[in-house]
Amino acid sequence: MSPEQSLTATAVNAWKIQIDRADKFFSSLDEGQLQKEIAPGKNRVVYLWGHLIAVHDAMLPLLDIGPRRYPELDAPFLTGADRAVATLPSLAELKSRWDEINGALLDAFGRFSASDWVAKHTVVSAEDFAQNPLRNRLSVLLSRTAHVGYHLGQCVLAPK
Amino acid sequence: MSPEQSLTATAVNAWKIQIDRADKFFSSLDEGQLQKEIAPGKNRVVYLWGHLIAVHDAMLPLLDIGPRRYPELDAPFLTGADRAVATLPSLAELKSRWDEINGALLDAFGRFSASDWVAKHTVVSAEDFAQNPLRNRLSVLLSRTAHVGYHLGQCVLAPK
Repeated sequence: MSPEQSLTATAVNAWKIQIDRADKFFSSLDEGQLQKEIAPGKNRVVYLWGHLIAVHDAMLPLLDIGPRRYPELDAPFLTGADRAVATLPSLAELKSRWDEINGALLDAFGRFSASDWVAKHTVVSAEDFAQNPLRNRLSVLLSRTAHVGYHLGQCVLAPK
Repeated sequence: MSPEQSLTATAVNAWKIQIDRADKFFSSLDEGQLQKEIAPGKNRVVYLWGHLIAVHDAMLPLLDIGPRRYPELDAPFLTGADRAVATLPSLAELKSRWDEINGALLDAFGRFSASDWVAKHTVVSAEDFAQNPLRNRLSVLLSRTAHVGYHLGQCVLAPK
């Protein structure tokens, strides 16, 4: 394995570790536990799970993998606060989208070369990227990896 | 910048972003806010800050940068639960250690080449590393980056 391959494989593995931890947590919940707040007056677990799904769905176009699959998740989970939308997807629907989107991402990551990872993501302009070559696909992966950790750290606080 | 350099610079930058976010949060607190629980009956903010400092201090030997500087932080913040040790360092002491340790890490990261990042960390054996070359220094950096996010996500929940 070349250093380049080892670096990118390590980054993808770090993402996978966070996804697996989050999956283990969310897959263990029932509908009642999904409705629990992470702390009094704060977001519910269901909101943060949906939020992660919406953010990961948006990684598909951001990393030039493909179009959004579930843009309708933005209103309840991304652009609006928790409880802004009354009717949310069921636990089974969330789990299905979570698995599908994370699966599509991991599939694409397996095909990315080191050059793909250091290429610009789709939201930065060519001019801005020339100024700051760290605004690349890998930076998106690493920031989203920490983002999973951030909200998982919150979700585990919800009362059982 | 070669792909290798871009990959490692991106990873170090992702670490730095989490550290800066955490630093901004912790530096804004007073002694009273440090004593707040992140949620009823859960860890206090002071414990999680000290925990991050102890974990980052342990990265020095783990990444073969140098010896531990503050192993005495382990009893109150790592091996024991919150409140297991009655007397904790002051806010000023925590801030000083936080800055010193993160500064030493960032200094060393600036000197690491791509080959250094894909080399084994000090806790894995040469045999195990040969089996799994992803148990490298970069994996430590990325897992600790997500770890900062995990606990920062919790700390921001503490009542102001």
